[in-house]
Amino acid sequence: MSKEITARSEEYAKWYNDLVIKGGLADYSAVRGCMVIKPYGFALWEAMRDVLDVKFKETGHQNAYFPLLIPKSFMSKEAAHVDGFAKECAVVTHHRLKNDPNGGGVIVDPEAKLEEELIIRPTSETIIWNTYKDWIQSYRDLPLLINQWANVVRWEMRTRLFLRTAEFLWQEGHTAHATAEEAIAETEQMLNVYGDFAEQYMAVPVIRGVKSASERFAGAVETYCVEALMQDGKALQAGTSHFLGQNFAKAFDVQFSNKENKLDYVWATSWGVSTRLIGGLIMVHSDDQGLVLPPRIAPLQVVIVPIYKGADQKTALDEKVNVIVAELKKAGIRVKYDDNDNNRPGWKFAEYEMKGVPVRIAIGARDLENNVAEVARRDTKEKMSLSLDGLAGRISELLEEIQTNLFTRAKNFRDEHITRVDTFEEFQKVLDEKTGFVSAHWDGTAETEEKIKELTKATIRCIPLDNPQEAGTCVLTGKPSKERVLFARAY
Amino acid sequence: MSKEITARSEEYAKWYNDLVIKGGLADYSAVRGCMVIKPYGFALWEAMRDVLDVKFKETGHQNAYFPLLIPKSFMSKEAAHVDGFAKECAVVTHHRLKNDPNGGGVIVDPEAKLEEELIIRPTSETIIWNTYKDWIQSYRDLPLLINQWANVVRWEMRTRLFLRTAEFLWQEGHTAHATAEEAIAETEQMLNVYGDFAEQYMAVPVIRGVKSASERFAGAVETYCVEALMQDGKALQAGTSHFLGQNFAKAFDVQFSNKENKLDYVWATSWGVSTRLIGGLIMVHSDDQGLVLPPRIAPLQVVIVPIYKGADQKTALDEKVNVIVAELKKAGIRVKYDDNDNNRPGWKFAEYEMKGVPVRIAIGARDLENNVAEVARRDTKEKMSLSLDGLAGRISELLEEIQTNLFTRAKNFRDEHITRVDTFEEFQKVLDEKTGFVSAHWDGTAETEEKIKELTKATIRCIPLDNPQEAGTCVLTGKPSKERVLFARAY
Repeated sequence: MSKEITARSEEYAKWYNDLVIKGGLADYSAVRGCMVIKPYGFALWEAMRDVLDVKFKETGHQNAYFPLLIPKSFMSKEAAHVDGFAKECAVVTHHRLKNDPNGGGVIVDPEAKLEEELIIRPTSETIIWNTYKDWIQSYRDLPLLINQWANVVRWEMRTRLFLRTAEFLWQEGHTAHATAEEAIAETEQMLNVYGDFAEQYMAVPVIRGVKSASERFAGAVETYCVEALMQDGKALQAGTSHFLGQNFAKAFDVQFSNKENKLDYVWATSWGVSTRLIGGLIMVHSDDQGLVLPPRIAPLQVVIVPIYKGADQKTALDEKVNVIVAELKKAGIRVKYDDNDNNRPGWKFAEYEMKGVPVRIAIGARDLENNVAEVARRDTKEKMSLSLDGLAGRISELLEEIQTNLFTRAKNFRDEHITRVDTFEEFQKVLDEKTGFVSAHWDGTAETEEKIKELTKATIRCIPLDNPQEAGTCVLTGKPSKERVLFARAY
Repeated sequence: MSKEITARSEEYAKWYNDLVIKGGLADYSAVRGCMVIKPYGFALWEAMRDVLDVKFKETGHQNAYFPLLIPKSFMSKEAAHVDGFAKECAVVTHHRLKNDPNGGGVIVDPEAKLEEELIIRPTSETIIWNTYKDWIQSYRDLPLLINQWANVVRWEMRTRLFLRTAEFLWQEGHTAHATAEEAIAETEQMLNVYGDFAEQYMAVPVIRGVKSASERFAGAVETYCVEALMQDGKALQAGTSHFLGQNFAKAFDVQFSNKENKLDYVWATSWGVSTRLIGGLIMVHSDDQGLVLPPRIAPLQVVIVPIYKGADQKTALDEKVNVIVAELKKAGIRVKYDDNDNNRPGWKFAEYEMKGVPVRIAIGARDLENNVAEVARRDTKEKMSLSLDGLAGRISELLEEIQTNLFTRAKNFRDEHITRVDTFEEFQKVLDEKTGFVSAHWDGTAETEEKIKELTKATIRCIPLDNPQEAGTCVLTGKPSKERVLFARAY
């Protein structure tokens, strides 16, 4: 194989990077912490975006677009919000370059200083709630259900492709409601949209829960999240949905007259998922041979590789394969016939394995005679000889089988890696040896949470929804506790 | 009517702004020169984007995503490019805010100054060609056909919603080729994609041509453009496609080994259209009652307004209308049944007229008895009584008739406003009185072009493709000329 991949057992982080780069998903850029999303990676993001966009619209949301730049003063209007984001803001201070009069190339024109500095949005609550002030007067204007697909910048010091980049792509929903109940129902609805998307499309099982107070979004009353488990036993937050109470409405003075004609502050939610999801997708399914992509969001679901000697065999194959391609396309399957002469079949097999294409069909002159093709699954590496008659129908079924198998495999792994512990010794041992989620009692204080993080690098990933209530004692302090929470080391 | 619109005859610019704001397309934001694209405006952009995206993919392009931020030093690598864009660059100089120790709120942290300032992309040639350097080694890597949907920032001093904003949304294609011929063919292909899109979807007739040297994109060898004519007789550039020669390949040292195994610089194109197109769309079709949108890109093609007294009539109407809605949707028509109780039918008529919905169907109790509905066209304001039997088929036809009528009407207006002149007196008179394009001889020099602009505010919009060659004398200098070019005042 021309492109070697580090084995997971050797160095998981390096394996991950190899897959992202050699799989053609993304690459480093000349700008610190920013990545280039390459065509194959962007096609994957488009497939995910298109599914989510339909789900957002089905639940009554409309897309809009708000400015990239936010006046610095807006950031400090909501106290918790500025504390959360101030440290990672990219700041625009000037609006012009000019030629250096001393011949030093191009310089920032000192005379083009902005009166007020602008922040590149790290998230858009402030600019959006400043706008909603003009849009909302009466209960008739509510609910206001808006989503934005956008780029955001958070100046991270330690970056990793997809998982943590200074600029990333995401969607952010921002809704306004007349009552707390409606806003909470919206927050939970969108959490379930994310959860269902992760499980049904990404084949990534997730735990739905709420964050502890310390892990909440800066400015939220409650942060709901979906948490996934990677193959290396670390957790990854795959999406969050925030109930913001009236915090932003008060910060930006957004009031409405209710049905009783009295003024009240509006109730808010926000929710988002980002290109980070791609990082999670890779770490749940892929293997030492490359990416493994779930069929429902794979940019390419089936690749057909011809095996032939000479032009006559090729012509005969082309004729048959063109019919097969048409049948697969008719069945709604994303298929490519790779008859590029420059690469040998073996190279192509390795390349599409690397790229995680769910099904590979190889077909040669003898297969034609026998009216069969060799079909290989990327997930199990199983190979089978299938009749060319009714092939499209069988491939459709196979894609669904692969989708289901990926989910089941990931769910079994995840379920095996949720360990109940009752002592701190066990707690540490599980984190170090077995890894995964640790279900333990906690006394509910931020101090204990912080102490556990210091000692173990594990954080509370979530308090699962519908968590069984069970009397116990905190794994660290021995103080009384009413329920277990899920800890893990996390990305 | 609740929302009054300034008449075009009174003040065209104010009419335009009224339509954008009261039609719910966009609004000013708290950030100088940046707009908020509201849901209705964004749905229009999505409809346009989706058509273009399919056309780009059909012509072999793939989407990707490059960083928002560009190192300052990149901007000066291509000399003409930096001259064109330096004056309007938003510059990021710091990466952190902090609390003012003197209690003055939040301030830029002076210790978080970037080593090298970053520019928010005004266009992405520099960062992309810096990346292509790593992607292109051999002729086998060519052509490289990539498009990006993105936001860009150009610090404009005088802004107008959609037409000229500090931040705007666009797509930018960036392609790399082995030969000049291939790159020119790509440039022309994409010009025709834009031209066909404008004419077939936006119903906006365009003239395809090339720019004079003075009006070229900063860094281009040749700039092709499509030019449209607004109702007020001013022109608007609706899209550009640039042949960049080897300028960026040389600036970023992008060489490839050709089939003869010799190193050569790569040939480049770039091409883009932006949210500016929405401004042009409005000014070509709309009227004093509001927006007029072409059916093929209208977010909503048909609205149905029920007219009733009491719950019984409403129930009977609902039953029938739900069947009609299902039939229209089955025919692929974007339809809304507006049975909102809070607004009277008259208010709704005005509202959807304002929003430019191509077809309005009003249906009342007596209509039900007669098995008919009142159907009104937005473009001609014609009303007709149509049988409910086979209504979906008739509405589909009607939408196509409206699409064709809008294009024909705009084309007739445009054609009537191309005036051949042979003296400078006529030239000025046409610009001042009749307005539109002036077809005149020009001596080919930048000096004359500049002088004409000073005297008349008109610029050379384009030299049409396949322009007839005709001996003549320059309208200003009397010097010899081989062809006419199109002048106009422009947005």
